[in-house]
Amino acid sequence: MRDYKHTVQYYETDKMGITHHSNYIRWMEEARVDFLDQIGWSYAKFEEKGIISPVAGVECTYKKTSTFPETISIVVSIAEYNGVKIVFKYTMSNAKGEVIAEAKSTHCFIGANKLPMMIKKAEPELHETLMSLLNA
Amino acid sequence: MRDYKHTVQYYETDKMGITHHSNYIRWMEEARVDFLDQIGWSYAKFEEKGIISPVAGVECTYKKTSTFPETISIVVSIAEYNGVKIVFKYTMSNAKGEVIAEAKSTHCFIGANKLPMMIKKAEPELHETLMSLLNA
Amino acid sequence: MRDYKHTVQYYETDKMGITHHSNYIRWMEEARVDFLDQIGWSYAKFEEKGIISPVAGVECTYKKTSTFPETISIVVSIAEYNGVKIVFKYTMSNAKGEVIAEAKSTHCFIGANKLPMMIKKAEPELHETLMSLLNA
Amino acid sequence: MRDYKHTVQYYETDKMGITHHSNYIRWMEEARVDFLDQIGWSYAKFEEKGIISPVAGVECTYKKTSTFPETISIVVSIAEYNGVKIVFKYTMSNAKGEVIAEAKSTHCFIGANKLPMMIKKAEPELHETLMSLLNA
Repeated sequence: MRDYKHTVQYYETDKMGITHHSNYIRWMEEARVDFLDQIGWSYAKFEEKGIISPVAGVECTYKKTSTFPETISIVVSIAEYNGVKIVFKYTMSNAKGEVIAEAKSTHCFIGANKLPMMIKKAEPELHETLMSLLNA
Repeated sequence: MRDYKHTVQYYETDKMGITHHSNYIRWMEEARVDFLDQIGWSYAKFEEKGIISPVAGVECTYKKTSTFPETISIVVSIAEYNGVKIVFKYTMSNAKGEVIAEAKSTHCFIGANKLPMMIKKAEPELHETLMSLLNA
Repeated sequence: MRDYKHTVQYYETDKMGITHHSNYIRWMEEARVDFLDQIGWSYAKFEEKGIISPVAGVECTYKKTSTFPETISIVVSIAEYNGVKIVFKYTMSNAKGEVIAEAKSTHCFIGANKLPMMIKKAEPELHETLMSLLNA
Repeated sequence: MRDYKHTVQYYETDKMGITHHSNYIRWMEEARVDFLDQIGWSYAKFEEKGIISPVAGVECTYKKTSTFPETISIVVSIAEYNGVKIVFKYTMSNAKGEVIAEAKSTHCFIGANKLPMMIKKAEPELHETLMSLLNA
Protein backbone atom coordinates (compact mmCIF):
# COMPACT_ATOMS: atom_id res chain seq x y z
CA MET A 1 0.00 0.00 0.00
CA ARG A 2 1.17 3.45 -0.98
CA ASP A 3 0.95 6.24 1.66
CA TYR A 4 -1.35 9.12 0.84
CA LYS A 5 0.33 12.50 0.42
CA HIS A 6 -1.34 15.82 1.16
CA THR A 7 0.38 19.14 0.60
CA VAL A 8 -0.86 21.68 3.12
CA GLN A 9 -2.44 24.61 1.31
CA TYR A 10 -2.19 28.27 2.28
CA TYR A 11 -5.98 28.40 2.74
CA GLU A 12 -5.72 25.55 5.27
CA THR A 13 -3.65 27.66 7.68
CA ASP A 14 -5.06 29.90 10.39
CA LYS A 15 -3.94 33.03 12.20
CA MET A 16 -1.78 30.96 14.56
CA GLY A 17 0.32 30.32 11.42
CA ILE A 18 -0.40 26.59 11.41
CA THR A 19 -2.79 24.20 9.69
CA HIS A 20 -6.26 24.66 11.19
CA HIS A 21 -7.08 21.48 13.09
CA SER A 22 -10.37 20.93 11.23
CA ASN A 23 -8.48 20.20 8.01
CA TYR A 24 -7.02 16.98 9.38
CA ILE A 25 -10.55 15.58 9.40
CA ARG A 26 -10.74 16.38 5.69
CA TRP A 27 -7.36 14.79 4.98
CA MET A 28 -8.63 11.62 6.66
CA GLU A 29 -11.37 11.49 4.03
CA GLU A 30 -8.86 12.04 1.22
CA ALA A 31 -6.62 9.27 2.54
CA ARG A 32 -9.55 6.88 3.12
CA VAL A 33 -10.84 7.35 -0.43
CA ASP A 34 -7.32 6.65 -1.73
CA PHE A 35 -6.99 3.57 0.50
CA LEU A 36 -10.28 2.11 -0.70
CA ASP A 37 -9.29 2.87 -4.28
CA GLN A 38 -6.00 1.00 -3.78
CA ILE A 39 -7.82 -2.10 -2.52
CA GLY A 40 -10.05 -2.10 -5.58
CA TRP A 41 -13.00 -0.18 -4.17
CA SER A 42 -13.03 3.17 -5.90
CA TYR A 43 -15.73 5.68 -5.08
CA ALA A 44 -17.15 5.00 -8.56
CA LYS A 45 -17.54 1.31 -7.69
CA PHE A 46 -19.37 2.04 -4.43
CA GLU A 47 -21.55 4.57 -6.21
CA GLU A 48 -22.41 2.13 -9.01
CA LYS A 49 -23.58 -0.38 -6.41
CA GLY A 50 -25.51 2.33 -4.54
CA ILE A 51 -23.41 1.85 -1.40
CA ILE A 52 -22.55 4.82 0.79
CA SER A 53 -20.37 4.83 3.85
CA PRO A 54 -21.32 7.69 6.17
CA VAL A 55 -19.06 8.76 9.00
CA ALA A 56 -20.39 7.69 12.41
CA GLY A 57 -17.53 9.20 14.38
CA VAL A 58 -14.10 10.75 14.17
CA GLU A 59 -11.31 11.38 16.63
CA CYS A 60 -7.97 13.03 16.11
CA THR A 61 -5.06 13.66 18.47
CA TYR A 62 -2.72 16.47 17.44
CA LYS A 63 0.92 15.86 18.34
CA LYS A 64 2.84 18.42 16.32
CA THR A 65 1.76 21.36 14.22
CA SER A 66 2.09 21.54 10.45
CA THR A 67 1.82 24.41 8.01
CA PHE A 68 1.88 25.47 4.38
CA PRO A 69 3.60 24.18 2.23
CA GLU A 70 4.58 20.97 4.02
CA THR A 71 3.72 17.60 2.52
CA ILE A 72 2.12 15.21 5.00
CA SER A 73 2.19 11.41 4.59
CA ILE A 74 -0.85 9.55 5.79
CA VAL A 75 -0.81 5.81 6.46
CA VAL A 76 -4.27 4.26 6.63
CA SER A 77 -5.00 0.94 8.23
CA ILE A 78 -8.02 -0.96 9.52
CA ALA A 79 -8.19 -0.89 13.31
CA GLU A 80 -11.49 -2.75 13.72
CA TYR A 81 -13.90 -4.56 11.45
CA ASN A 82 -16.75 -6.85 12.42
CA GLY A 83 -18.60 -7.32 9.16
CA VAL A 84 -20.85 -4.30 9.74
CA LYS A 85 -18.80 -1.52 11.30
CA ILE A 86 -15.31 -0.51 10.28
CA VAL A 87 -12.79 1.68 12.07
CA PHE A 88 -9.99 3.21 10.01
CA LYS A 89 -6.79 4.39 11.66
CA TYR A 90 -4.68 7.23 10.27
CA THR A 91 -1.08 8.04 11.13
CA MET A 92 0.05 11.39 9.75
CA SER A 93 3.75 12.23 9.51
CA ASN A 94 5.76 15.19 8.29
CA ALA A 95 8.81 15.07 6.00
CA LYS A 96 11.12 14.50 8.97
CA GLY A 97 9.16 11.34 9.78
CA GLU A 98 7.65 12.84 12.92
CA VAL A 99 4.09 11.75 13.68
CA ILE A 100 1.99 14.92 13.72
CA ALA A 101 -1.43 13.37 14.28
CA GLU A 102 -3.14 10.06 14.98
CA ALA A 103 -6.78 9.64 14.11
CA LYS A 104 -9.65 7.22 13.71
CA SER A 105 -12.94 7.26 11.88
CA THR A 106 -15.86 4.87 12.28
CA HIS A 107 -18.19 3.96 9.42
CA CYS A 108 -20.92 1.59 8.47
CA PHE A 109 -22.00 0.80 4.93
CA ILE A 110 -25.50 1.65 3.76
CA GLY A 111 -26.80 -0.31 0.79
CA ALA A 112 -29.06 0.78 -2.04
CA ASN A 113 -32.03 -0.14 0.19
CA LYS A 114 -30.92 2.57 2.68
CA LEU A 115 -30.23 -0.03 5.37
CA PRO A 116 -26.94 -0.86 7.08
CA MET A 117 -25.29 -3.65 5.13
CA MET A 118 -24.02 -7.00 6.39
CA ILE A 119 -20.86 -6.78 4.28
CA LYS A 120 -20.10 -10.47 4.66
CA LYS A 121 -23.33 -11.41 2.92
CA ALA A 122 -23.83 -8.48 0.59
CA GLU A 123 -20.26 -8.04 -0.63
CA PRO A 124 -18.29 -11.16 0.31
CA GLU A 125 -15.26 -10.11 -1.75
CA LEU A 126 -15.03 -6.76 0.06
CA HIS A 127 -15.49 -8.60 3.36
CA GLU A 128 -12.55 -10.92 2.62
CA THR A 129 -10.34 -8.00 1.65
CA LEU A 130 -11.19 -6.06 4.82
CA MET A 131 -10.67 -9.15 7.00
CA SER A 132 -7.25 -9.78 5.48
CA LEU A 133 -6.25 -6.14 6.01
CA LEU A 134 -7.50 -6.22 9.60
CA ASN A 135 -5.16 -9.07 10.41
CA ALA A 136 -2.26 -7.67 8.40
CA MET B 1 -34.17 45.30 3.94
CA ARG B 2 -32.00 44.19 6.81
CA ASP B 3 -28.19 43.92 6.24
CA TYR B 4 -26.72 40.46 6.59
CA LYS B 5 -24.21 40.02 9.42
CA HIS B 6 -21.36 37.55 9.35
CA THR B 7 -18.97 37.12 12.26
CA VAL B 8 -15.54 36.12 11.00
CA GLN B 9 -14.58 32.75 12.47
CA TYR B 10 -11.12 31.71 13.61
CA TYR B 11 -11.09 28.93 11.01
CA GLU B 12 -11.67 31.55 8.29
CA THR B 13 -8.34 33.25 8.97
CA ASP B 14 -5.03 32.32 7.35
CA LYS B 15 -1.37 32.57 8.29
CA MET B 16 -1.29 36.23 7.21
CA GLY B 17 -3.54 36.75 10.26
CA ILE B 18 -6.49 37.88 8.16
CA THR B 19 -9.64 36.37 6.69
CA HIS B 20 -8.69 34.16 3.77
CA HIS B 21 -10.03 35.82 0.62
CA SER B 22 -11.96 32.71 -0.49
CA ASN B 23 -14.35 33.08 2.42
CA TYR B 24 -15.83 36.29 1.05
CA ILE B 25 -17.24 34.21 -1.82
CA ARG B 26 -18.98 32.05 0.79
CA TRP B 27 -20.32 35.08 2.66
CA MET B 28 -21.84 36.29 -0.62
CA GLU B 29 -23.85 33.06 -0.70
CA GLU B 30 -24.95 33.49 2.92
CA ALA B 31 -26.04 37.08 2.25
CA ARG B 32 -27.80 36.18 -1.01
CA VAL B 33 -29.79 33.38 0.66
CA ASP B 34 -30.82 35.85 3.37
CA PHE B 35 -31.77 38.51 0.80
CA LEU B 36 -33.96 36.09 -1.15
CA ASP B 37 -35.51 34.93 2.11
CA GLN B 38 -36.35 38.54 3.02
CA ILE B 39 -38.12 39.11 -0.30
CA GLY B 40 -40.25 36.03 0.26
CA TRP B 41 -38.17 33.49 -1.65
CA SER B 42 -36.67 31.18 0.92
CA TYR B 43 -34.49 28.31 -0.19
CA ALA B 44 -37.34 25.98 0.84
CA LYS B 45 -39.68 27.76 -1.59
CA PHE B 46 -37.24 27.45 -4.50
CA GLU B 47 -36.63 23.82 -3.62
CA GLU B 48 -40.34 23.04 -3.47
CA LYS B 49 -40.75 24.44 -6.97
CA GLY B 50 -37.67 22.55 -8.18
CA ILE B 51 -35.87 25.78 -9.07
CA ILE B 52 -32.12 26.04 -8.61
CA SER B 53 -29.97 29.07 -9.19
CA PRO B 54 -26.39 28.08 -10.01
CA VAL B 55 -23.57 30.59 -9.92
CA ALA B 56 -22.39 31.56 -13.41
CA GLY B 57 -19.72 33.93 -12.19
CA VAL B 58 -18.31 35.80 -9.22
CA GLU B 59 -16.01 38.73 -8.77
CA CYS B 60 -14.73 40.34 -5.61
CA THR B 61 -12.50 43.34 -5.00
CA TYR B 62 -10.74 43.39 -1.64
CA LYS B 63 -10.28 46.88 -0.19
CA LYS B 64 -9.39 46.30 3.44
CA THR B 65 -8.55 43.20 5.40
CA SER B 66 -10.75 41.70 8.11
CA THR B 67 -10.10 39.11 10.77
CA PHE B 68 -11.58 37.04 13.59
CA PRO B 69 -13.74 38.01 15.47
CA GLU B 70 -14.99 41.03 13.53
CA THR B 71 -18.62 41.26 12.45
CA ILE B 72 -19.07 42.20 8.80
CA SER B 73 -22.24 43.81 7.43
CA ILE B 74 -23.23 42.84 3.92
CA VAL B 75 -25.69 44.88 1.88
CA VAL B 76 -27.11 42.99 -1.09
CA SER B 77 -28.75 44.68 -4.05
CA ILE B 78 -29.70 43.78 -7.61
CA ALA B 79 -27.28 45.29 -10.11
CA GLU B 80 -28.77 43.78 -13.28
CA TYR B 81 -31.82 41.71 -14.13
CA ASN B 82 -33.25 41.00 -17.57
CA GLY B 83 -35.85 38.35 -16.86
CA VAL B 84 -33.36 35.49 -17.30
CA LYS B 85 -30.05 36.49 -15.78
CA ILE B 86 -29.57 38.28 -12.49
CA VAL B 87 -26.51 40.02 -11.07
CA PHE B 88 -26.35 40.56 -7.31
CA LYS B 89 -24.09 43.23 -5.85
CA TYR B 90 -22.58 42.94 -2.36
CA THR B 91 -21.05 45.71 -0.30
CA MET B 92 -19.23 44.44 2.78
CA SER B 93 -18.37 46.81 5.63
CA ASN B 94 -16.65 46.48 8.97
CA ALA B 95 -17.89 47.85 12.30
CA LYS B 96 -16.25 51.24 11.61
CA GLY B 97 -18.36 51.50 8.46
CA GLU B 98 -15.37 51.06 6.17
CA VAL B 99 -16.08 49.16 2.96
CA ILE B 100 -13.81 46.09 3.02
CA ALA B 101 -15.00 44.42 -0.17
CA GLU B 102 -17.27 44.90 -3.14
CA ALA B 103 -18.50 41.92 -5.06
CA LYS B 104 -20.90 40.63 -7.69
CA SER B 105 -22.34 37.26 -8.58
CA THR B 106 -24.22 36.27 -11.71
CA HIS B 107 -26.93 33.63 -11.76
CA CYS B 108 -29.63 32.19 -13.92
CA PHE B 109 -32.56 30.15 -12.69
CA ILE B 110 -32.99 26.55 -13.77
CA GLY B 111 -36.49 25.11 -13.56
CA ALA B 112 -37.65 21.63 -12.69
CA ASN B 113 -37.25 20.76 -16.41
CA LYS B 114 -33.49 21.46 -16.08
CA LEU B 115 -33.73 24.37 -18.52
CA PRO B 116 -32.97 28.06 -17.92
CA MET B 117 -36.19 29.74 -16.84
CA MET B 118 -37.84 32.80 -18.35
CA ILE B 119 -38.70 34.20 -14.92
CA LYS B 120 -41.24 36.64 -16.31
CA LYS B 121 -43.38 33.81 -17.66
CA ALA B 122 -42.61 31.05 -15.18
CA GLU B 123 -42.70 33.05 -11.95
CA PRO B 124 -44.34 36.43 -12.69
CA GLU B 125 -44.53 37.37 -9.01
CA LEU B 126 -40.78 36.81 -8.53
CA HIS B 127 -40.17 38.77 -11.75
CA GLU B 128 -42.15 41.76 -10.45
CA THR B 129 -40.29 41.70 -7.15
CA LEU B 130 -36.89 41.56 -8.85
CA MET B 131 -37.85 44.36 -11.30
CA SER B 132 -38.97 46.60 -8.45
CA LEU B 133 -35.71 45.95 -6.55
CA LEU B 134 -33.64 46.60 -9.67
CA ASN B 135 -35.09 50.06 -9.97
CA ALA B 136 -35.01 50.78 -6.23
CA MET C 1 -25.45 30.29 29.77
CA ARG C 2 -26.94 30.86 26.35
CA ASP C 3 -26.72 28.04 23.75
CA TYR C 4 -24.71 28.78 20.65
CA LYS C 5 -26.67 28.78 17.39
CA HIS C 6 -25.19 27.88 14.02
CA THR C 7 -27.20 28.01 10.82
CA VAL C 8 -25.96 25.38 8.38
CA GLN C 9 -24.74 27.06 5.21
CA TYR C 10 -25.17 25.75 1.67
CA TYR C 11 -21.40 25.56 1.28
CA GLU C 12 -21.25 23.28 4.32
CA THR C 13 -23.26 20.55 2.60
CA ASP C 14 -21.79 17.77 0.48
CA LYS C 15 -23.01 15.61 -2.41
CA MET C 16 -24.79 13.29 0.02
CA GLY C 17 -27.10 16.30 0.56
CA ILE C 18 -26.11 16.70 4.21
CA THR C 19 -23.68 18.78 6.25
CA HIS C 20 -20.16 17.51 5.65
CA HIS C 21 -18.94 15.96 8.90
CA SER C 22 -15.78 18.10 9.04
CA ASN C 23 -17.87 21.22 9.64
CA TYR C 24 -18.98 20.01 13.07
CA ILE C 25 -15.36 20.37 14.18
CA ARG C 26 -15.53 24.02 13.08
CA TRP C 27 -18.83 24.60 14.88
CA MET C 28 -17.20 23.30 18.06
CA GLU C 29 -14.68 26.12 17.75
CA GLU C 30 -17.42 28.70 17.17
CA ALA C 31 -19.34 27.45 20.22
CA ARG C 32 -16.20 27.30 22.40
CA VAL C 33 -15.25 30.89 21.54
CA ASP C 34 -18.79 31.97 22.43
CA PHE C 35 -18.74 29.99 25.69
CA LEU C 36 -15.44 31.56 26.78
CA ASP C 37 -16.78 34.98 25.82
CA GLN C 38 -19.86 34.40 27.98
CA ILE C 39 -17.72 33.55 31.03
CA GLY C 40 -15.75 36.77 30.59
CA TRP C 41 -12.83 35.42 28.54
CA SER C 42 -13.21 36.85 25.08
CA TYR C 43 -10.65 36.03 22.44
CA ALA C 44 -9.45 39.65 22.72
CA LYS C 45 -8.73 39.13 26.42
CA PHE C 46 -6.71 35.96 25.81
CA GLU C 47 -4.85 37.69 22.98
CA GLU C 48 -4.05 40.72 25.12
CA LYS C 49 -2.50 38.43 27.71
CA GLY C 50 -0.63 36.48 25.03
CA ILE C 51 -2.43 33.25 25.92
CA ILE C 52 -3.32 30.77 23.21
CA SER C 53 -5.25 27.56 23.60
CA PRO C 54 -4.32 25.07 20.89
CA VAL C 55 -6.44 22.00 20.24
CA ALA C 56 -4.77 18.81 21.48
CA GLY C 57 -7.55 16.51 20.37
CA VAL C 58 -11.11 16.33 19.07
CA GLU C 59 -13.72 13.64 18.87
CA CYS C 60 -17.21 13.75 17.46
CA THR C 61 -19.96 11.14 17.26
CA TYR C 62 -22.56 11.76 14.58
CA LYS C 63 -26.06 10.65 15.55
CA LYS C 64 -28.35 12.28 13.00
CA THR C 65 -27.65 14.19 9.81
CA SER C 66 -28.30 17.90 9.35
CA THR C 67 -28.45 20.09 6.29
CA PHE C 68 -28.86 23.61 4.94
CA PRO C 69 -30.63 25.74 6.20
CA GLU C 70 -31.24 24.15 9.61
CA THR C 71 -30.26 25.98 12.76
CA ILE C 72 -28.29 23.86 15.21
CA SER C 73 -28.11 24.58 18.96
CA ILE C 74 -24.85 23.77 20.66
CA VAL C 75 -24.57 23.43 24.43
CA VAL C 76 -20.99 23.66 25.71
CA SER C 77 -19.89 22.41 29.10
CA ILE C 78 -16.66 21.51 30.84
CA ALA C 79 -16.18 17.76 31.06
CA GLU C 80 -12.74 17.74 32.68
CA TYR C 81 -10.38 20.34 34.08
CA ASN C 82 -7.29 19.78 36.21
CA GLY C 83 -5.67 23.19 36.27
CA VAL C 84 -3.63 22.53 33.13
CA LYS C 85 -5.74 20.59 30.67
CA ILE C 86 -9.38 21.25 29.86
CA VAL C 87 -11.91 19.10 28.04
CA PHE C 88 -14.96 20.80 26.58
CA LYS C 89 -18.11 18.82 25.79
CA TYR C 90 -20.52 19.82 23.03
CA THR C 91 -24.07 18.62 22.56
CA MET C 92 -25.57 19.63 19.22
CA SER C 93 -29.32 19.51 18.67
CA ASN C 94 -31.63 20.31 15.77
CA ALA C 95 -34.83 22.39 15.94
CA LYS C 96 -36.86 19.32 16.96
CA GLY C 97 -34.61 18.93 19.98
CA GLU C 98 -32.97 15.78 18.65
CA VAL C 99 -29.30 15.38 19.50
CA ILE C 100 -27.44 15.24 16.18
CA ALA C 101 -23.88 15.05 17.50
CA GLU C 102 -21.88 14.78 20.70
CA ALA C 103 -18.30 15.94 20.76
CA LYS C 104 -15.31 16.76 22.91
CA SER C 105 -12.18 18.83 22.47
CA THR C 106 -9.06 18.86 24.63
CA HIS C 107 -6.91 21.93 25.12
CA CYS C 108 -4.10 23.29 27.17
CA PHE C 109 -3.25 26.95 27.58
CA ILE C 110 0.08 28.31 26.36
CA GLY C 111 1.27 31.51 27.98
CA ALA C 112 3.21 34.40 26.49
CA ASN C 113 6.41 32.47 27.35
CA LYS C 114 5.30 29.70 24.92
CA LEU C 115 5.02 27.20 27.78
CA PRO C 116 1.95 25.31 29.01
CA MET C 117 0.36 27.38 31.77
CA MET C 118 -0.53 26.31 35.27
CA ILE C 119 -3.86 28.16 35.16
CA LYS C 120 -4.32 28.04 38.92
CA LYS C 121 -1.18 30.11 39.45
CA ALA C 122 -1.08 32.18 36.29
CA GLU C 123 -4.76 33.12 36.06
CA PRO C 124 -6.43 32.30 39.40
CA GLU C 125 -9.66 34.03 38.43
CA LEU C 126 -10.00 31.94 35.27
CA HIS C 127 -9.15 28.84 37.33
CA GLU C 128 -11.96 29.57 39.81
CA THR C 129 -14.44 30.11 37.00
CA LEU C 130 -13.49 26.86 35.26
CA MET C 131 -13.60 24.92 38.56
CA SER C 132 -17.07 26.25 39.34
CA LEU C 133 -18.29 25.32 35.85
CA LEU C 134 -16.76 21.86 36.11
CA ASN C 135 -18.80 21.12 39.19
CA ALA C 136 -21.96 22.78 37.88
CA MET D 1 5.49 24.99 -17.68
CA ARG D 2 3.63 22.08 -16.18
CA ASP D 3 -0.16 22.38 -15.63
CA TYR D 4 -1.35 22.23 -12.06
CA LYS D 5 -3.60 19.27 -11.22
CA HIS D 6 -6.25 19.34 -8.51
CA THR D 7 -8.36 16.30 -7.67
CA VAL D 8 -11.80 17.38 -6.50
CA GLN D 9 -12.39 16.15 -2.96
CA TYR D 10 -15.66 14.85 -1.55
CA TYR D 11 -15.69 17.68 0.99
CA GLU D 12 -15.52 20.20 -1.87
CA THR D 13 -18.91 19.13 -3.24
CA ASP D 14 -22.26 20.58 -2.19
CA LYS D 15 -25.84 19.34 -2.07
CA MET D 16 -26.28 20.11 -5.78
CA GLY D 17 -23.83 17.19 -6.22
CA ILE D 18 -21.14 19.40 -7.76
CA THR D 19 -18.01 21.22 -6.64
CA HIS D 20 -19.04 24.25 -4.59
CA HIS D 21 -18.08 27.34 -6.59
CA SER D 22 -16.03 28.85 -3.76
CA ASN D 23 -13.45 26.09 -4.07
CA TYR D 24 -12.33 27.30 -7.50
CA ILE D 25 -10.99 30.42 -5.77
CA ARG D 26 -8.90 28.14 -3.55
CA TRP D 27 -7.63 26.11 -6.52
CA MET D 28 -6.48 29.38 -8.11
CA GLU D 29 -4.25 29.89 -5.08
CA GLU D 30 -2.89 26.34 -5.30
CA ALA D 31 -2.13 26.77 -9.00
CA ARG D 32 -0.56 30.23 -8.49
CA VAL D 33 1.76 28.95 -5.75
CA ASP D 34 2.82 26.12 -8.06
CA PHE D 35 3.35 28.51 -10.99
CA LEU D 36 5.56 30.81 -8.91
CA ASP D 37 7.45 27.79 -7.64
CA GLN D 38 8.08 26.64 -11.21
CA ILE D 39 9.54 30.02 -12.18
CA GLY D 40 11.92 29.88 -9.24
CA TRP D 41 9.89 31.84 -6.71
CA SER D 42 8.78 29.37 -4.09
CA TYR D 43 6.73 30.56 -1.17
CA ALA D 44 9.81 29.94 1.01
CA LYS D 45 11.81 32.38 -1.13
CA PHE D 46 9.17 35.11 -0.87
CA GLU D 47 8.90 34.50 2.87
CA GLU D 48 12.67 34.68 3.36
CA LYS D 49 12.68 38.07 1.66
CA GLY D 50 9.68 39.23 3.68
CA ILE D 51 7.56 39.70 0.55
CA ILE D 52 3.86 38.95 0.63
CA SER D 53 1.45 39.10 -2.26
CA PRO D 54 -2.09 39.75 -1.05
CA VAL D 55 -5.07 39.25 -3.31
CA ALA D 56 -6.59 42.53 -4.47
CA GLY D 57 -9.33 40.94 -6.51
CA VAL D 58 -10.63 37.72 -8.01
CA GLU D 59 -13.10 36.85 -10.73
CA CYS D 60 -14.24 33.47 -11.96
CA THR D 61 -16.63 32.45 -14.71
CA TYR D 62 -18.10 28.98 -14.36
CA LYS D 63 -18.69 27.21 -17.67
CA LYS D 64 -19.24 23.56 -16.74
CA THR D 65 -19.71 21.83 -13.43
CA SER D 66 -17.19 19.43 -11.90
CA THR D 67 -17.45 16.97 -9.06
CA PHE D 68 -15.61 14.45 -6.90
CA PRO D 69 -13.36 12.64 -7.87
CA GLU D 70 -12.49 14.43 -11.14
CA THR D 71 -9.00 15.72 -11.74
CA ILE D 72 -8.91 19.30 -13.01
CA SER D 73 -5.99 20.77 -14.97
CA ILE D 74 -5.22 24.41 -14.37
CA VAL D 75 -3.10 26.46 -16.75
CA VAL D 76 -1.77 29.67 -15.22
CA SER D 77 -0.50 32.60 -17.25
CA ILE D 78 0.22 36.27 -16.71
CA ALA D 79 -2.50 38.44 -18.23
CA GLU D 80 -1.15 41.83 -17.09
CA TYR D 81 1.96 43.09 -15.38
CA ASN D 82 3.18 46.66 -15.05
CA GLY D 83 6.01 46.36 -12.55
CA VAL D 84 3.71 46.87 -9.56
CA LYS D 85 0.46 45.03 -10.16
CA ILE D 86 0.10 41.57 -11.63
CA VAL D 87 -2.94 39.79 -13.01
CA PHE D 88 -2.84 36.00 -13.25
CA LYS D 89 -5.16 34.16 -15.60
CA TYR D 90 -6.37 30.61 -14.91
CA THR D 91 -7.93 28.21 -17.38
CA MET D 92 -9.40 25.11 -15.73
CA SER D 93 -10.19 22.02 -17.78
CA ASN D 94 -11.61 18.60 -17.05
CA ALA D 95 -10.22 15.26 -18.24
CA LYS D 96 -12.15 15.54 -21.51
CA GLY D 97 -10.32 18.80 -22.20
CA GLU D 98 -13.44 20.90 -21.71
CA VAL D 99 -12.86 24.31 -20.13
CA ILE D 100 -14.88 24.34 -16.91
CA ALA D 101 -13.84 27.75 -15.59
CA GLU D 102 -11.86 30.83 -16.50
CA ALA D 103 -10.57 33.08 -13.78
CA LYS D 104 -8.30 35.98 -12.91
CA SER D 105 -6.69 37.25 -9.74
CA THR D 106 -5.00 40.59 -9.15
CA HIS D 107 -2.11 41.05 -6.74
CA CYS D 108 0.49 43.53 -5.69
CA PHE D 109 3.67 42.68 -3.81
CA ILE D 110 4.27 44.08 -0.34
CA GLY D 111 7.87 44.26 0.81
CA ALA D 112 9.35 43.78 4.24
CA ASN D 113 8.71 47.51 4.85
CA LYS D 114 4.94 46.86 4.49
CA LEU D 115 4.79 49.05 1.39
CA PRO D 116 3.81 48.09 -2.16
CA MET D 117 6.97 47.14 -4.04
CA MET D 118 8.28 48.47 -7.32
CA ILE D 119 9.32 45.00 -8.51
CA LYS D 120 11.54 46.36 -11.26
CA LYS D 121 13.77 48.08 -8.70
CA ALA D 122 13.39 45.81 -5.72
CA GLU D 123 13.61 42.45 -7.46
CA PRO D 124 14.92 43.00 -11.01
CA GLU D 125 15.32 39.29 -11.66
CA LEU D 126 11.68 38.59 -10.77
CA HIS D 127 10.69 41.58 -12.92
CA GLU D 128 12.52 40.18 -15.95
CA THR D 129 10.95 36.77 -15.47
CA LEU D 130 7.44 38.21 -15.20
CA MET D 131 8.00 40.48 -18.24
CA SER D 132 9.18 37.53 -20.33
CA LEU D 133 6.15 35.47 -19.28
CA LEU D 134 3.78 38.36 -20.01
CA ASN D 135 4.94 38.46 -23.60
CA ALA D 136 5.12 34.69 -24.00
